[in-house]
Amino acid sequence: MRGIEKGVYLELLSKNMKPQRVVIALGGNALQEANSPATAEAQRQVVQKTCRYLAEISCKGYEISVVHGNGPQVGRILLASEVAQNVTPAMPFDVCGAMSQGYIGYHLQQGLKEALKKQNRNLPVVTITTQMIVDENDPAFNNPTKPIGPFYTQEEAEKIAEEKGYTMKEDAGRGWRRVVPSPRPKEIVEIDSVKRLWDSTIVITCGGGGIPVIENNDGTLQGVAAVIDKDFAAELLAEEVEADILLILTEVEKVMIHFKKPNQKGLDKLSVADATKYMEEGHFAPGSMLPKVQAAIKFVRTNPDKKAIITSLYHAVDALEGKTGTEIIFE
Amino acid sequence: MRGIEKGVYLELLSKNMKPQRVVIALGGNALQEANSPATAEAQRQVVQKTCRYLAEISCKGYEISVVHGNGPQVGRILLASEVAQNVTPAMPFDVCGAMSQGYIGYHLQQGLKEALKKQNRNLPVVTITTQMIVDENDPAFNNPTKPIGPFYTQEEAEKIAEEKGYTMKEDAGRGWRRVVPSPRPKEIVEIDSVKRLWDSTIVITCGGGGIPVIENNDGTLQGVAAVIDKDFAAELLAEEVEADILLILTEVEKVMIHFKKPNQKGLDKLSVADATKYMEEGHFAPGSMLPKVQAAIKFVRTNPDKKAIITSLYHAVDALEGKTGTEIIFE
Repeated sequence: MRGIEKGVYLELLSKNMKPQRVVIALGGNALQEANSPATAEAQRQVVQKTCRYLAEISCKGYEISVVHGNGPQVGRILLASEVAQNVTPAMPFDVCGAMSQGYIGYHLQQGLKEALKKQNRNLPVVTITTQMIVDENDPAFNNPTKPIGPFYTQEEAEKIAEEKGYTMKEDAGRGWRRVVPSPRPKEIVEIDSVKRLWDSTIVITCGGGGIPVIENNDGTLQGVAAVIDKDFAAELLAEEVEADILLILTEVEKVMIHFKKPNQKGLDKLSVADATKYMEEGHFAPGSMLPKVQAAIKFVRTNPDKKAIITSLYHAVDALEGKTGTEIIFE
Repeated sequence: MRGIEKGVYLELLSKNMKPQRVVIALGGNALQEANSPATAEAQRQVVQKTCRYLAEISCKGYEISVVHGNGPQVGRILLASEVAQNVTPAMPFDVCGAMSQGYIGYHLQQGLKEALKKQNRNLPVVTITTQMIVDENDPAFNNPTKPIGPFYTQEEAEKIAEEKGYTMKEDAGRGWRRVVPSPRPKEIVEIDSVKRLWDSTIVITCGGGGIPVIENNDGTLQGVAAVIDKDFAAELLAEEVEADILLILTEVEKVMIHFKKPNQKGLDKLSVADATKYMEEGHFAPGSMLPKVQAAIKFVRTNPDKKAIITSLYHAVDALEGKTGTEIIFE
């Protein structure tokens, strides 16, 4: 058990409870606010704020691990790399992902350690560079959907497609962009170290969903250009560490149906059956709420006695105590 | 003890020995060859080769940890970031360092795991994003010496110095560059996790000497623009994990006096007293062999019963067995 305050420990003891293991998936708003500039300093400040909420969860006696997104960050790393390619070689997308893990992980481990210290909770926090094995036969590889990097004209895009073999698609009238597949995560390469550190340490892992790698026939790993959804990565991590709770944090307090319509309604509980129906009806936006609900369903399907919660960073502690948020339940 | 082959185990047992702990400092040539392009793919191939040598050390029963340099890599990350600053905000130097740890660590952990697997040695390998506390009163802050990033004209340099407060210096007739201090490492922030993983796992840590941070009065950490020598970082790590051997790998098989002169001579043993004399006589180049010898001296001064070895990657196993390399001895 990680060192916790005596009061919290006694409370757990009185309830005959072990500390609960919580894997937290952090949404984009935990790293960058809508109107803040895309500088490292602005991110550091948002992360500091985020970490106060994460520290609060830890101080309540939950054993946490943190998975973060990296969309805007890896996009900017790739953009800088491509813009500068006449002076220094452009980095491939798997390497950009590794760089984003270092960048975001550094800010998170520094900010979380600081926030914990302020609560007199001296707990190690580390980031592990994490590779995620994906299946090269994943159908996603036949249908790349995730736009990455800079915008191009159609002519430029066609030239790039021919020269580099990239798939280029027109992006909502804004220009042409490279698209990469979004396969499902299969195996966390560094899971063993996450498990070994669990009892003592808050581990930041599977950043950006993990660096996507495929396993060759000879067992070697090879980076690929792909985007792994961080909610699915967090779900896999939660299964691996036998987490009690998968906590998916986003911008809204509760999962909504009829989102942003007059009859919008927040859900306290969401059964797998209802979620499936709502998904079919198109209530949850792809690339936004949809993967969160899908990841939550996968977790409670695999572990019907465990919990998946979707809520906002600011309501996380209340949601863990059953006061708000949306709990996805098996039935 | 990490899982090792039965034959190696029995040999250790017959010698009544525990596995020896070895902290390895990897020189720049372990990541990039002199004539290879500066692409990620070229680096990956050099790293794969490097990892075959590292795996061989591990297979001999030594418990290793790896510290790598990052000079060329962090330089290119900074360069791309500055060249692209009109399209996306430039990253500060501490963040560039964190990104380089992710980038290089990813290649090393992938390559080393692969090389070990080929030897039927299934050992976890992870990279930990590592912060290194430096003393803000370190005299190095008054005399920045390490050039980083792109070259500028004198006029540009003066403008940057005024706008950003950077120290700019003329660099050997090639133009003006920003210079940053090179303070000594004081404390590895994530050391606890390195220690916890030691018995089971090869940890890649303190990459590029660590991300330099200073400790504010309130105990919070703050990234600074500085370059920490990776040999000194490896030395500190070796002290912290109570390593038996600090193994500094570079391009030459032995430390030389009269280097590249007709009377050049490789040294088998080098006492602290002789090393001090040779340093005074200017035998070891600053920023190259000098910090290696200094780090080795510091290690054996602190631990007179332990070993520091300087040799090449290719001679590492032989040097560990006392057959070649330069052993720095207390007296």
